[in-house]
Amino acid sequence: MLLACPDRPGIVAAVTERLLQRGWNILSLEQHVEGGDSFFMRILAEGAGPEADRVHPELMALGERFGGSVWLHDPQRQMRIGLLVTHEPACAVDLLVRARLGQLPGLIPVVVSNRRDLAWLSEMFEVDFHHVPDDDQATHERRATELLERSGVELVVLARYMKVLSAEFLGRYPDAVINIHHSFLPSFKGARAYHQAWERGVKVIGATAHYATTDLDEGPIIAQDVLPVTHQHSARMMVESGRDIERRVLAQAVLAHLEHRIIIHRRRTIVFHPDGLEG
Amino acid sequence: MLLACPDRPGIVAAVTERLLQRGWNILSLEQHVEGGDSFFMRILAEGAGPEADRVHPELMALGERFGGSVWLHDPQRQMRIGLLVTHEPACAVDLLVRARLGQLPGLIPVVVSNRRDLAWLSEMFEVDFHHVPDDDQATHERRATELLERSGVELVVLARYMKVLSAEFLGRYPDAVINIHHSFLPSFKGARAYHQAWERGVKVIGATAHYATTDLDEGPIIAQDVLPVTHQHSARMMVESGRDIERRVLAQAVLAHLEHRIIIHRRRTIVFHPDGLEG
Amino acid sequence: MLLACPDRPGIVAAVTERLLQRGWNILSLEQHVEGGDSFFMRILAEGAGPEADRVHPELMALGERFGGSVWLHDPQRQMRIGLLVTHEPACAVDLLVRARLGQLPGLIPVVVSNRRDLAWLSEMFEVDFHHVPDDDQATHERRATELLERSGVELVVLARYMKVLSAEFLGRYPDAVINIHHSFLPSFKGARAYHQAWERGVKVIGATAHYATTDLDEGPIIAQDVLPVTHQHSARMMVESGRDIERRVLAQAVLAHLEHRIIIHRRRTIVFHPDGLEG
Amino acid sequence: MLLACPDRPGIVAAVTERLLQRGWNILSLEQHVEGGDSFFMRILAEGAGPEADRVHPELMALGERFGGSVWLHDPQRQMRIGLLVTHEPACAVDLLVRARLGQLPGLIPVVVSNRRDLAWLSEMFEVDFHHVPDDDQATHERRATELLERSGVELVVLARYMKVLSAEFLGRYPDAVINIHHSFLPSFKGARAYHQAWERGVKVIGATAHYATTDLDEGPIIAQDVLPVTHQHSARMMVESGRDIERRVLAQAVLAHLEHRIIIHRRRTIVFHPDGLEG
Repeated sequence: MLLACPDRPGIVAAVTERLLQRGWNILSLEQHVEGGDSFFMRILAEGAGPEADRVHPELMALGERFGGSVWLHDPQRQMRIGLLVTHEPACAVDLLVRARLGQLPGLIPVVVSNRRDLAWLSEMFEVDFHHVPDDDQATHERRATELLERSGVELVVLARYMKVLSAEFLGRYPDAVINIHHSFLPSFKGARAYHQAWERGVKVIGATAHYATTDLDEGPIIAQDVLPVTHQHSARMMVESGRDIERRVLAQAVLAHLEHRIIIHRRRTIVFHPDGLEG
Repeated sequence: MLLACPDRPGIVAAVTERLLQRGWNILSLEQHVEGGDSFFMRILAEGAGPEADRVHPELMALGERFGGSVWLHDPQRQMRIGLLVTHEPACAVDLLVRARLGQLPGLIPVVVSNRRDLAWLSEMFEVDFHHVPDDDQATHERRATELLERSGVELVVLARYMKVLSAEFLGRYPDAVINIHHSFLPSFKGARAYHQAWERGVKVIGATAHYATTDLDEGPIIAQDVLPVTHQHSARMMVESGRDIERRVLAQAVLAHLEHRIIIHRRRTIVFHPDGLEG
Repeated sequence: MLLACPDRPGIVAAVTERLLQRGWNILSLEQHVEGGDSFFMRILAEGAGPEADRVHPELMALGERFGGSVWLHDPQRQMRIGLLVTHEPACAVDLLVRARLGQLPGLIPVVVSNRRDLAWLSEMFEVDFHHVPDDDQATHERRATELLERSGVELVVLARYMKVLSAEFLGRYPDAVINIHHSFLPSFKGARAYHQAWERGVKVIGATAHYATTDLDEGPIIAQDVLPVTHQHSARMMVESGRDIERRVLAQAVLAHLEHRIIIHRRRTIVFHPDGLEG
Repeated sequence: MLLACPDRPGIVAAVTERLLQRGWNILSLEQHVEGGDSFFMRILAEGAGPEADRVHPELMALGERFGGSVWLHDPQRQMRIGLLVTHEPACAVDLLVRARLGQLPGLIPVVVSNRRDLAWLSEMFEVDFHHVPDDDQATHERRATELLERSGVELVVLARYMKVLSAEFLGRYPDAVINIHHSFLPSFKGARAYHQAWERGVKVIGATAHYATTDLDEGPIIAQDVLPVTHQHSARMMVESGRDIERRVLAQAVLAHLEHRIIIHRRRTIVFHPDGLEG
């Protein structure tokens, strides 16, 4: 259960009492107040008994009473993920490997690409690979959407997908399209960002995973990480090292989404901590 | 407010309702359940109104009812800290600087040493410096205790203090003596630990801050951090780099203690996150 | 070219002059002196012209003259790698993926295991998978050696291989068996190391890649890295996070070996920096 | 000795032979080639004997012959450092503490400020503190320059100095003015950078130390580092954590400069590794 609402006294007491009355045991609770006026909470609870289900509408009603939003998720249910890729395999392979090894609580039934380069993924990972050519944007997106929908995809991951998506496409997957891009201190933009970074002699390279919005690369940040580099790193080595951070950061962001640990608030994310419960 | 007790349904609801009834507003709440049977919670709350004070005995009673412990602290009150040092200044200076710059919510009125080397600290930081010679252990500790007590010290920090303390001394400051020591992967012990680590060519050096117990260097760990090193680091450079991590890790541990963010449970610590509230 | 010898004036001048005379251009040179008496150097050079090959015996002779060792390698030649595994796939899969994506300058023709669990690797990566049962140690090792030799393996990587190898086996691959194991601050040993670490509440977990020697887990360290953890990490989450560091550290160590950037000296390694040359 | 020149065969041989002939023993040599055409080298050597001094003009001549630059430094000589500050003490105090504890091979005789806030530094560290008011820029800089020159300052460190310096001022200290500023992924500019970063929910904050140029905050980068943050960090906590990284990164950059380990090449720096020699 995720809750976001304006802060006021009594929220925690009201919610936890209700869960208690309906026979739910709280396994994990994390709350966060910010700016003195916004309240966020995540509760992982285990329910049993005849009245357990009755709590759902009651929690939704509580959310309304507090003027906020409540999201309820079943942590056992595996979310279905669609990957969009172009020609770089590292991020996609990493997610497919993690899903294969049981390290991601989700399924990846489909990979869609605007190029044919990564068709070999389908054999290696028993996943549907579809090439959707780079015609006009509308046709491309319509075709991609059909394929994603046919596979029941709930989360779209842009695993080095080198195309800008339209507002219409993003609107179909609200808060459910995750993108990865490199990032630098200070930041460089455009096609040859690593070369620009090399020319300035940066000592740190990084990657940012974020929800995709129409404002390219400006959506709410989910995860970031960096790696130190020296003058000994050529631009090409920086690209290679960057790839390693990108795949690690993307996996971290996808995991947080699958575990329902993220609330988006304005242009920020609240990313709650992993639960750490023994299985 | 800190609470540790066996896990059972209804704890959060009971505590938060009680605070609500007495006019307290919860600014921050973090809970943690582990092993399926242990429950820990930290609440930062702001009270006002005529009934605010009445909550104190009620919370203590709740703690008893749940078969656990409750600790209540006033975050405004500055804790008094005593430093024990030998001859290496880096850790002590770092804490004194942070206290001077207002980065530590505590006061350091006194430094006690078994050597005279660091007497210059008293001028630089307006702190009482006392040399207590290395006679027999009992005399040394008695004298040190007198000095610490005269200054009203509640937290003792061993800032590179090269003496083992007796069970009697530690018993006077239960869960309130913090020590810092280097640590390595894989670990090396004894006087020339950095040289042993160099000989094995370790690629990472680190530091551990922990509560001191009679079992030397085996007390509950509060904070740890590391730094990468290469074959280019001589043993002496490793000592110098190690010093930097030691002071950083010690400051982090002392801050967590001063902010009442630590619960000790068996040989572990639960270190709650900083509050992040605007002042 | 790698050189290790006692330090004395004139080594660099002698070697670089010789290369110059035979028409080699130095692309990269890194030297390291330690303890005031040991000298190490790595040179990457590009040769052309009729006299280029004549430099090989001359460099070997120089090494002898300086009382040390010289190793000459052709960086274009792909080394052949054999993996030994038991049942955990993460490290093996990571190396196979990197080889498949061209991120490792080597080939992995064969995987040998004392269990059948990972037989699926052979389909996924077009690699020979051989199950060699856990009979008596001598038979097991003889059979494994045959398989490795038949594939022309020059480097053996123990990618979570849960068996101790005999001195005889290690003697067949001198300085060419790389192992990975977890490491902690302070360190814990034995089968349930992660659980011990959890009980002490460590705040950092790590991994160490090293050359295997008969003294288990005590060989020269090649690479190490760590990850911060909190009280929120259960022992199981620590195992999972640990797996991520293990695969990253192992890949880093294997890469350094394949790029001929390591000199073993006593119980230490000198790991020279990557070259950073554009291809 | 530092050397930067176009790459060509025979540079290392020529320089090392010359040193050998004049009785110098090379303690440490690091070279770096980049872009296939630029060559950089740093040599630390120990000379003795009647002919040692004769090598100086010979090395300068060699540099000329190779069409590059040679810089010769005596590592024993302590460089004199002047600090420019405004009102934030953390970076200045850290450098003064390190100088006081012998961790920086330099002297800090003078602190100049456009405010009176940090006048207390003079008592604490036995350093001259001068308040130079914020009149017109030219007068301010002229007065500051006089004070720095009177103290024989060779390196100017902007330790949180909130004023832009003119080209004229920077011209007096070519490649010898080091600045520190915060940096973020993605980057934010202007006065309330931390608040902007907080609003975007960044997960990493950092700091960059660089040589100051007339192009504000765009000079060659010397050192960078970062710290992870979460949604739990308020903007104020980010400012505080940022301060810790700033002081650490600035100290690292100043140390590299004092140890003559930096060559500036176009908009990049080559920062050679520390020597790691036992003293």
